Amino acid sequence: MRLRFTILCLFAVFLTVQSPAQAQSAASDSALIRSVYDEALANGESYANLRSLTKDIGHRLSGSQSAFDAMNWGAEIMRGYGADSVWIMPVMVPSWTRGDIARASAILGKTSTPLHVTALGGSVGTPNDAVIQGKVVMVKDVAALDTLPREDVEGRIVLFNRPMDPVLINTGAAYGGAVDQRGNGASAAALAGAIGALVRSMTHALDTLPHTGALRYKPDAPQIPAAAISTVDASWLGNQLEADPDLEVSLQMNCRAFDDVEQGNVIGEWRGSERPHEIITLGGHLDSWDIGEGAHDDGAGVVHTLEVLRILKAIGYSPRRTLRFVLFINEENGNRGGKQYAAVAADEHQANLRHVAALESDAGGFVPRGFRVDGDDGAAAMVRSWADLFDPYDVHQFRRGGAGVDISPLKELEPRPTLLGLSPDGQRYFDFHHSSQDVFENVHKRELELGAATFAAAVILLDRHLPSPDTSR
Amino acid sequence: MRLRFTILCLFAVFLTVQSPAQAQSAASDSALIRSVYDEALANGESYANLRSLTKDIGHRLSGSQSAFDAMNWGAEIMRGYGADSVWIMPVMVPSWTRGDIARASAILGKTSTPLHVTALGGSVGTPNDAVIQGKVVMVKDVAALDTLPREDVEGRIVLFNRPMDPVLINTGAAYGGAVDQRGNGASAAALAGAIGALVRSMTHALDTLPHTGALRYKPDAPQIPAAAISTVDASWLGNQLEADPDLEVSLQMNCRAFDDVEQGNVIGEWRGSERPHEIITLGGHLDSWDIGEGAHDDGAGVVHTLEVLRILKAIGYSPRRTLRFVLFINEENGNRGGKQYAAVAADEHQANLRHVAALESDAGGFVPRGFRVDGDDGAAAMVRSWADLFDPYDVHQFRRGGAGVDISPLKELEPRPTLLGLSPDGQRYFDFHHSSQDVFENVHKRELELGAATFAAAVILLDRHLPSPDTSR
Repeated sequence: MRLRFTILCLFAVFLTVQSPAQAQSAASDSALIRSVYDEALANGESYANLRSLTKDIGHRLSGSQSAFDAMNWGAEIMRGYGADSVWIMPVMVPSWTRGDIARASAILGKTSTPLHVTALGGSVGTPNDAVIQGKVVMVKDVAALDTLPREDVEGRIVLFNRPMDPVLINTGAAYGGAVDQRGNGASAAALAGAIGALVRSMTHALDTLPHTGALRYKPDAPQIPAAAISTVDASWLGNQLEADPDLEVSLQMNCRAFDDVEQGNVIGEWRGSERPHEIITLGGHLDSWDIGEGAHDDGAGVVHTLEVLRILKAIGYSPRRTLRFVLFINEENGNRGGKQYAAVAADEHQANLRHVAALESDAGGFVPRGFRVDGDDGAAAMVRSWADLFDPYDVHQFRRGGAGVDISPLKELEPRPTLLGLSPDGQRYFDFHHSSQDVFENVHKRELELGAATFAAAVILLDRHLPSPDTSR
Repeated sequence: MRLRFTILCLFAVFLTVQSPAQAQSAASDSALIRSVYDEALANGESYANLRSLTKDIGHRLSGSQSAFDAMNWGAEIMRGYGADSVWIMPVMVPSWTRGDIARASAILGKTSTPLHVTALGGSVGTPNDAVIQGKVVMVKDVAALDTLPREDVEGRIVLFNRPMDPVLINTGAAYGGAVDQRGNGASAAALAGAIGALVRSMTHALDTLPHTGALRYKPDAPQIPAAAISTVDASWLGNQLEADPDLEVSLQMNCRAFDDVEQGNVIGEWRGSERPHEIITLGGHLDSWDIGEGAHDDGAGVVHTLEVLRILKAIGYSPRRTLRFVLFINEENGNRGGKQYAAVAADEHQANLRHVAALESDAGGFVPRGFRVDGDDGAAAMVRSWADLFDPYDVHQFRRGGAGVDISPLKELEPRPTLLGLSPDGQRYFDFHHSSQDVFENVHKRELELGAATFAAAVILLDRHLPSPDTSR
């Protein structure tokens, strides 16, 4: 017993004099992951960083001064956290401003009732910033416009009023099933002769918040003004229309587009110790809509990304591959940052730098549920094999699905990198999404920290276990 | 083709003329569960019922008038939802009132700094409702008092200041690891000679909310007043004590206990069609603490229970066993309702009524994660076998664990019923638990509805597939 105790003591001394990097290279995945969660929950900085991003800087609409400020803010933190190098990848981004007028009213006889609206991103203002007014035609979907006689739409304002389906458990699927109204409604209405469009806000909540988001004008369609209208107002207006089909709506907005400006993706690199020519990218998008603070969308992804760098340094992790921490610009209205990053990645590919995987956090700062995998069967199976490792952390979803808008252009590379999206719980996401309530106060500290830890754990598992494209072929 | 079409039409007519009860008896588990979630999310009444319980009635402390009102409210809804019979099972409950004074201050030199405190449930007031004042001794756990010289505690106020462990993923485990301070601290302090106790609030959040909860006086200990102190105040006071060990704290409270009063468990029964002598109980507790509205604790469990009755009726389900919907009284400070229910169940057992299973929802109205199973290996395996059925609803935890305070006394029955507790996500629960912020506004409509559906689905699966004790032996 005495001898065995001495050996144990010597072993303990040996463990003590190991460097953290030595210790982690021998550590099990499960021990590493436990240390990641411990670090995130006991010493986390993601919440303080999110407070700074949302309160010191605020919203970060592409092309705005605050988006510039946020780029500097992110680069500064990456340097402080010890990235080997930090740079800005220039990206030309659209510059659109909401203006200070977005008014709409329902006119029923002599009564004018204000409606809660805000411009859809990219919308033109009303002609000469003046009031337009017209009767209203309500449709449940964009295709319905094709079935209406032209005189039922011409000169009118179209109300797109199909709610998100409440019985879908996945709120993202409910969003996906309704968002065509926002993206395509304005041009479809214009082609049918309408003078404006109102789109029911993309949320399950019944409230008076308009939720903005990008529209896409078709090249062949006249550009008419389009606004998001709150769900309460949309439901009320729909009921009023049934009682009085001749009621009119007025709309006035002075939003407008300016010339593109140069901003950029913020990139921090940590070179790998074993396979530095293989790159794992992780990121979120720095830009946000302008009517909230972009706290969940996508301040959470930004601070998750920064926190992975901090956590991995804090636990003494030494990445085998090169890690790229990327704060993308312009996800909301163009994805120019994601496209530019992929274009540069294609050039790097020619120079034998291999993008083997990319991860994105752009679904909010809620309690993590798992990952969406966009890759081949081997990648999907590898991610599913993590189930036992993540079970102690209540992380359980390992499903196929789109991994993120910013990283999706990387799919064009050959061989195709494995893409992974963090999946937080989505039940509350669309309460805040693209609205004035997407603010710091609606993010929960522990949930944000758990998301950061889950994101970091996935980075470690990919770094340790992803087959190399050079050897697997 | 024509013939096949005709047969299809006839089959469709056949399906149409089936009664809902006939249709459901042939339905697959997965189809039934889908109809449960659809009903909860599209036509749910749980959220409106919770608004009524919390806003029309308010808190429901055992012995209070509002607890009486809530009993009538619950019985009324059960009748409206079509229970075969509804009754009140009388229970004598404690009657304790918080009073209108709970003040504490830290006195440092000439400065007096108010502290955010509230009485722990069951505490005596300060002697003659007057101010007590003394030096403070801070400990991290109850056992530490045994190691201190008596003069370090005598005449002082003990500050129990061990935080909930932030690195535990399961917040309930973190609560369980800290709550001995609240339950046992006062008597341990009194036995060591203290004149009062302050207990750090049981929450991960750093805020100024005191969180109440029951204390237990030991029969052999003097009864000294004990208060919860907010985490911000507890941390601040701990830091001040390090700088000035001689600082004093004053405390004044006029809470007190009165004679027990008769209230009761509200019970609605829906008799089974095939095995009416086998009883499945499901419930939550109607009583709550008095400084919030008891929205998550346990208004959510109350409306979950009522909603199961409504949903099962709405989808035309016909239970094989007898379902008992129970709103228990006095979970928070005595569990007299749960004990009385089990005592009556033991009598029923003698009369050949068999309690085969019981389910409880008492962990909040958050997004459901799964169930805690308290039963034999067969029961645990059966519940684990539900994983595929619940996967589309993101319900994934099928772990062993305590199922609920109210139903736990049923474990004394022989054969032992299978107990199941609904497990919602717990990350936010202790932000609100036992505090003034446990209010309706902090419950999310869809999350509450998903919890109700998950609870209902478990009731259906137990009703359909639980082995009968009479046949399995």
